[in-house]
Amino acid sequence: MRASVLRDGRMTYRDDVPDPVPGPGQVLVAVRACGICGSDLHFAAHGAEVLALTAQLTRGRGGMDVDLSRDIFMGHEFSAEIIEAGPDTETLPPGTLVTSLPVLLSAKGAEPIVYSNITIGGYAERMLLSAPLLIPIPSGLDPKHAALTEPMAVGLHAVNRSNIRPGETALVLGCGPIGIAIIGALRLRGVEAIVAADFSPKRRELATALGAHQALDPAEGSPFDTVKPAVVFEAVGVPGIIDDVLLRARPGTRLVVAGVCMQPDTLHPFFAIAKEINVQFVLAYAPDEFAESLRAIAEGNIDVSPLITGEVGLDGVGAAFDDLADPERHCKILVTPQGAGQ
Amino acid sequence: MRASVLRDGRMTYRDDVPDPVPGPGQVLVAVRACGICGSDLHFAAHGAEVLALTAQLTRGRGGMDVDLSRDIFMGHEFSAEIIEAGPDTETLPPGTLVTSLPVLLSAKGAEPIVYSNITIGGYAERMLLSAPLLIPIPSGLDPKHAALTEPMAVGLHAVNRSNIRPGETALVLGCGPIGIAIIGALRLRGVEAIVAADFSPKRRELATALGAHQALDPAEGSPFDTVKPAVVFEAVGVPGIIDDVLLRARPGTRLVVAGVCMQPDTLHPFFAIAKEINVQFVLAYAPDEFAESLRAIAEGNIDVSPLITGEVGLDGVGAAFDDLADPERHCKILVTPQGAGQ
Repeated sequence: MRASVLRDGRMTYRDDVPDPVPGPGQVLVAVRACGICGSDLHFAAHGAEVLALTAQLTRGRGGMDVDLSRDIFMGHEFSAEIIEAGPDTETLPPGTLVTSLPVLLSAKGAEPIVYSNITIGGYAERMLLSAPLLIPIPSGLDPKHAALTEPMAVGLHAVNRSNIRPGETALVLGCGPIGIAIIGALRLRGVEAIVAADFSPKRRELATALGAHQALDPAEGSPFDTVKPAVVFEAVGVPGIIDDVLLRARPGTRLVVAGVCMQPDTLHPFFAIAKEINVQFVLAYAPDEFAESLRAIAEGNIDVSPLITGEVGLDGVGAAFDDLADPERHCKILVTPQGAGQ
Repeated sequence: MRASVLRDGRMTYRDDVPDPVPGPGQVLVAVRACGICGSDLHFAAHGAEVLALTAQLTRGRGGMDVDLSRDIFMGHEFSAEIIEAGPDTETLPPGTLVTSLPVLLSAKGAEPIVYSNITIGGYAERMLLSAPLLIPIPSGLDPKHAALTEPMAVGLHAVNRSNIRPGETALVLGCGPIGIAIIGALRLRGVEAIVAADFSPKRRELATALGAHQALDPAEGSPFDTVKPAVVFEAVGVPGIIDDVLLRARPGTRLVVAGVCMQPDTLHPFFAIAKEINVQFVLAYAPDEFAESLRAIAEGNIDVSPLITGEVGLDGVGAAFDDLADPERHCKILVTPQGAGQ
């Protein structure tokens, strides 16, 4: 079958990947849409560093078992259509549109569907999912929109962890897909003052479309000169941003770090101490947040359509990775392995 | 009158300081005991850096107005005896033993009693306090012990901000006065598993005396190899400690940063993100925590006597600052301006 795999740092089209075979509890699905995530771009460019940091963190226990010299499957923001269940597996009927937490359960345990030499992800014609984790896509919801369930769940989780109350002001630094997802979730939670900041006019437009009440250009001055937020969401993920927040934020600020900075970062603890700042680092989401994210999209409480700025087939994934470097052109590109008409 | 002042980076004895005169709402007191705080040692050695960092943080608004080229009064951990009230000031009768938040109220506003060219602190025979802030020392409590109210309130505040529950395990990194105060407060809050870590045997002994259930020597291996804390209190305040906690702590750890690191510090956000660590930076205490600290000392729920490892007169403050560098010899040295017998 066809797939796009990471090979020597580039997404490479293949038409000779063996079809996966579902085991007990597993389901073979046809991928309908799979979003390209910033973490995939990062892994393609800096895979060795990601593996080294992860190994340092897990000290050899439970790290990622990925061989960069071999082809790597990726794609964890997907919607799909059920083809057939594995042996002795009760599940939804063939043809059902589904999404799922990106985790593949097997007799050996649970493997994340994220970076793997073995487990196929969403940048492929077909993949395996886990019957117990399937969530049917509500009737009438475009499976392309359902593919945004995962990134929007990341935003919902960040907002939930912030414990923000509707009357508090939120500042979202960075309006890439994570920042935008946070804005959508803040709106869902009824927050009445959502301020976004991004250097890109297009991204500020998207932020407004998703529900930001104000969108600032940091080139015209620090957002902190305009707004006094109770909660700051950092969705940029580059060194220096955290320290700038510590320097400029008001006392008692809660800072939620959702941007994934992989490099070492330098900050002044004194700034944070003097203001008693709370820093909550966040990652991913819980299963109920994933399910709520899908419901919010289906019910129109989060409109994801403005985020989708491009669509490519499996042979266009490499070019799409390049194109995503330009924030003026793109936010989320979907890979549609069955063709645009599907 | 006599006092010890910071001059050219050294504590210097003077016997020619003019007696302060209480204004309306103020009270003249005779200092009975004043603890030497680590922040005073730091300010004596690195005052210019502290002022520069504070100016950067406040951007010229509300910073510390201190001239390092002139004598500086310090001392904010005091107990005292009322001598006389200022004009039109109702307060407790002369002879009453009191303590107070280290803040001097005047017609011009509220000034912290911490570092000042004008406002006299506890390293002096006499000083001014604010009538509305006076708290009488409960009958029978040694005023030397009451002088520990302030540092113990710092520990109580850190523990309160951690929201620790009695069944959770606490790890306290560093058993200087702040770490020890945290241990006392954890015990006060009924925490059943308090683990302390310090390189100094004497400090580990103190930690145990204040209520730690286990005291580890980091030279024999990381405390995280022995214990899996839910809450970590960082009371060391040197660069590198925070990152080490992020690397070694388990997912979901709450890290309370109570150690005051004045230098820039480098850490890996990725470690914290991967584990969704929460970092609460803390400083000082609220007035109710100060009052509770005094009550806990008076009622014997926190026994501060093992902390007091030395006592000097006003002419011995300079040498005491030097002596405090050795954790084997000292934890808290009290300055007793009226002489040891008072």
